[in-house]
Amino acid sequence: MTSEHLSKQIAFIKEIDKIKYITRKTKLFYSDRHENDAEHSWHLAVMALILSEHANESIDILKVIKMVLIHDLVEIDAGDTFLYDLQKNHTNTEEETKAAQRIFGMLPEAQAQELLTLWLEFEEGSSNEAKFARAMDRLEPLLQNASNNGGTWEEFNVPYATVYKKQQAIENGSAMLWRYAQEILDESVNQGILKK
Amino acid sequence: MTSEHLSKQIAFIKEIDKIKYITRKTKLFYSDRHENDAEHSWHLAVMALILSEHANESIDILKVIKMVLIHDLVEIDAGDTFLYDLQKNHTNTEEETKAAQRIFGMLPEAQAQELLTLWLEFEEGSSNEAKFARAMDRLEPLLQNASNNGGTWEEFNVPYATVYKKQQAIENGSAMLWRYAQEILDESVNQGILKK
Repeated sequence: MTSEHLSKQIAFIKEIDKIKYITRKTKLFYSDRHENDAEHSWHLAVMALILSEHANESIDILKVIKMVLIHDLVEIDAGDTFLYDLQKNHTNTEEETKAAQRIFGMLPEAQAQELLTLWLEFEEGSSNEAKFARAMDRLEPLLQNASNNGGTWEEFNVPYATVYKKQQAIENGSAMLWRYAQEILDESVNQGILKK
Repeated sequence: MTSEHLSKQIAFIKEIDKIKYITRKTKLFYSDRHENDAEHSWHLAVMALILSEHANESIDILKVIKMVLIHDLVEIDAGDTFLYDLQKNHTNTEEETKAAQRIFGMLPEAQAQELLTLWLEFEEGSSNEAKFARAMDRLEPLLQNASNNGGTWEEFNVPYATVYKKQQAIENGSAMLWRYAQEILDESVNQGILKK
């Protein structure tokens, strides 16, 4: 007979399937198809794996990967918050905190606590791991937009200065990747797909 | 100026986006929508994280997560192989080996070698980490099919004995999860969504 412990874990595993229906504003590379949160989270995890050597500080890569795998689960309840939505502002809203408590709370106590703590650390953004995880979260849509003739920058008329400010979070995680990101932004301005 | 090293990493990150278009036979939980390989790989990574305590042997969970994140990248070139396709047989085909060499080969040498070795270890299935990773790869579609009135078991008339034999790979990774999987299979037979 299945233990209550395992039953809780399986219920969580089924619940998080819903993230596959949460659509982001950004689109896949060179594509017209919107990305969903599961695809996005997978991509960030592989990016973290591949790019970890460029982190500013020594990082626990397992912790970074755990963070990016679960960072958007709250959107099952709270919905996607667009990076350049100045109203919702992409801060840790009350709605997201409630969502985290409900969703991670489906797990056995110790695991629920571990994931909630990880999620809060990601949102807070001050540990070395959170800084690098957040750099990945900025870099993916930057690359996607550059591949899609401006993508959401064009679609929502986001000017260079706003993009630059948001993307600067990459610097906290990796000076090397921030230099690279700035090159992409400069090229995008030159190509006219990002307006100065 | 961007180094050749980083350029290779970025080219790989863009290339693997294609996995989001590779559609599996199985569908999302309680759903009519087919799952893609990126969603599947993300789900296995979170499952591995949550269920690692049930592994038969002590495992390096970072290694397991790396394996499941990259295990299906070869399908970008080779396409999805359906678990119950007795023709293609889900073995390590020559086509998949070529795909692994091309795709992982886009990375700087040391990383290319690391991922190729990890992928081969997963395919071989004999290390503790590969056994547990493969158990995750079996468990997800089992749970999905049970949630979808039989899913691919019904759609492709796969009988209980065939499913049982394929699913037994779970036992190599976790006796505990195999007992649970057997309960699900028995219930599915009782509900008439899996034919004995």
